[in-house]
Amino acid sequence: MKKDTKESLCRFGVSIPKSLIDAFDNYIKVRAYKNRSEAIRDLIREKLVEQEWESDVHDREVVGTITYVFDHHKRELVDSIIRIQHQFADHVIASQHVHLDHDNCLEVAIVKGNPSTLRGVAYKLKALKGVKHCRFTMTTTGSFLK
Amino acid sequence: MKKDTKESLCRFGVSIPKSLIDAFDNYIKVRAYKNRSEAIRDLIREKLVEQEWESDVHDREVVGTITYVFDHHKRELVDSIIRIQHQFADHVIASQHVHLDHDNCLEVAIVKGNPSTLRGVAYKLKALKGVKHCRFTMTTTGSFLK
Amino acid sequence: MKKDTKESLCRFGVSIPKSLIDAFDNYIKVRAYKNRSEAIRDLIREKLVEQEWESDVHDREVVGTITYVFDHHKRELVDSIIRIQHQFADHVIASQHVHLDHDNCLEVAIVKGNPSTLRGVAYKLKALKGVKHCRFTMTTTGSFLK
Amino acid sequence: MKKDTKESLCRFGVSIPKSLIDAFDNYIKVRAYKNRSEAIRDLIREKLVEQEWESDVHDREVVGTITYVFDHHKRELVDSIIRIQHQFADHVIASQHVHLDHDNCLEVAIVKGNPSTLRGVAYKLKALKGVKHCRFTMTTTGSFLK
Repeated sequence: MKKDTKESLCRFGVSIPKSLIDAFDNYIKVRAYKNRSEAIRDLIREKLVEQEWESDVHDREVVGTITYVFDHHKRELVDSIIRIQHQFADHVIASQHVHLDHDNCLEVAIVKGNPSTLRGVAYKLKALKGVKHCRFTMTTTGSFLK
Repeated sequence: MKKDTKESLCRFGVSIPKSLIDAFDNYIKVRAYKNRSEAIRDLIREKLVEQEWESDVHDREVVGTITYVFDHHKRELVDSIIRIQHQFADHVIASQHVHLDHDNCLEVAIVKGNPSTLRGVAYKLKALKGVKHCRFTMTTTGSFLK
Repeated sequence: MKKDTKESLCRFGVSIPKSLIDAFDNYIKVRAYKNRSEAIRDLIREKLVEQEWESDVHDREVVGTITYVFDHHKRELVDSIIRIQHQFADHVIASQHVHLDHDNCLEVAIVKGNPSTLRGVAYKLKALKGVKHCRFTMTTTGSFLK
Repeated sequence: MKKDTKESLCRFGVSIPKSLIDAFDNYIKVRAYKNRSEAIRDLIREKLVEQEWESDVHDREVVGTITYVFDHHKRELVDSIIRIQHQFADHVIASQHVHLDHDNCLEVAIVKGNPSTLRGVAYKLKALKGVKHCRFTMTTTGSFLK
C-alpha cells in the first residue's frame, strides 16, 4: 500500500553561476530548507500548481480554500453562509470557524471542484452583507505531485 | 451589547460616467451583490486590508491562513508539523485537516500575530520534506472594518 | 470630436458605516486622491480590468507589458529577443530599452492581443538564457472604461 | 571587461521523484526552455527577486515599471503626469508612450529607487483624474543575479 509513495528518485545535474548559488544557499538557510534538492522540488511544485490553475482545462479538479471574516451579529448572515455552503454541498468539503473578537468571526471553507465553480462559491460568500473580507486561495489535490 | 454593531451610517454621493456605472452594474449582477453600496463597501474594505499588510507597522496584529498539502506517509512529517504548530502556539489559533485521497492531506491553520512572524510560520511549514504546496493568505481581524 | 469624452455623469448615493468612511478618507489622503468619487471610480475600474482578464472570452483584445532584465553580453541574446518580437510583430506595439549598469539592461515591451497569445510571448522571452527576470503585467485598452 | 560575465559555473546534483521530473519536463517543453538547468535558474532568480522586495531593507535600490492607461483628452492630465515625473526626476529613468485608440494612451515609466518611494510615484499617477488603470511591476537591477 505504501508502494506508490516509495517512488523511484531521479538524480540529475544542474549548472549554475557561483554568485547565484551563493544567493540561493542564503535563501535556503533563511527559509530553513534541509538541502538544495528540497528547495528546488518546492520551486518546481509551486510552478506546476500555478500552471494547473492557469490552464484552460476547466474540467480538471482543483482544491482551494475560501477565507472570510464576518460580523456574526449581522441579521441572517450566518443563515445565508450556511445556505450557500449547502447549495454547493458537493464542493465544500469542510469548514472551520474561529471567534476573533466579540463581533468578528473567521471561517475557512475547503473546496474542491473545477476552478470556475469554486470561484463562484467564493464570489457568493464575498457578496453577502456583513462579510468584511473574503479571499480565495488556490492549491492542489497534490495527486500529480510527488 | 449590539450597540457597537448598530453603528451610524453615512451617506454620500458619487459621480461616475454613465458607461462606467453600466459596466459596474453588470459586475454587481454577475457577482450577486444586493446593491451598489454593498459592492462599494467591499471594494473599500479589500483595499484597506491590502494597505494594512503593506504598511510598515510591524507591531500591528493581523490574521491569516496557511494552507498546505502533504503526503501523510512521509516519515515524521506529521510530527514535524505538530511541533511547528506548538512552537508557535500563541499564533496558531486552530487548524483543520481533510483527506484528499489515499496519500494526500490538506490542512489549513488559522494564524494571528504580526506579519513577519506569520510569514515565518508559513515558511517553516513550506520547507518540510513532504509538504507539496503551501500558501499563505492574508486577511484581517476585521476589528477596524465595519 | 471631443463629444465622446464629455460623457454624461451619473450621481448616486452610497451608505457606509461611519468608521469605514473614516478609514477610507484616510486612505484617500495617503494616496493623494482629489475626492471620494475619484477614489471609488478607481476601485471600480481596477475590478473591471481584473474581471476582463479572468473571464473566458479568449477572443477579447487586451493590453499588457512585458518587463525583462537581461545581460546583454550573453551571446546571441539580443538577436533572440528581436527575433521573438518580430515573430509576434502584430502583437508587440513598441519596446523601450534602458541600461541599468555595465552588464544589465531592462526592456519593456507593450503588447496587444488575446490573453493567451500575450502570455505566450512573455514565456518565450522568459525562457531565453540570459534573461534574469521577466514579468508580465496585465492592463487594458481602456476602451470600455470611462 | 567581459571577465565578470564569464563567471565560474557550479554544478550540483538534485534528486527528484520520477513523476515530478516528468511533469517538470513537460513544463519545460511548454515554456520552451532549452534545458532543466535554465528552467531551474529561472525559478531561483524569480524567488530571489520576490525576496528582495519582501525584505525590510528599505535602502536597497530596486527597479520597477509603472504602466498606466489614460484618456489624453482629460484637461491638464498630461501636464500633471509630466509634473509628477519631473518631481521624481531622479527615479524615473525613462518613459514610453503609445496611442491605443482615439482617446486612450498607454505609458510605461521605468523607475529606480527604494521600494516605498517607487510605490509612492505609482500611487500619485494612479490618483490622477483620467488615469483609468495603473499597475506597478516589481523587477530588479539584476546586479546580484547571474
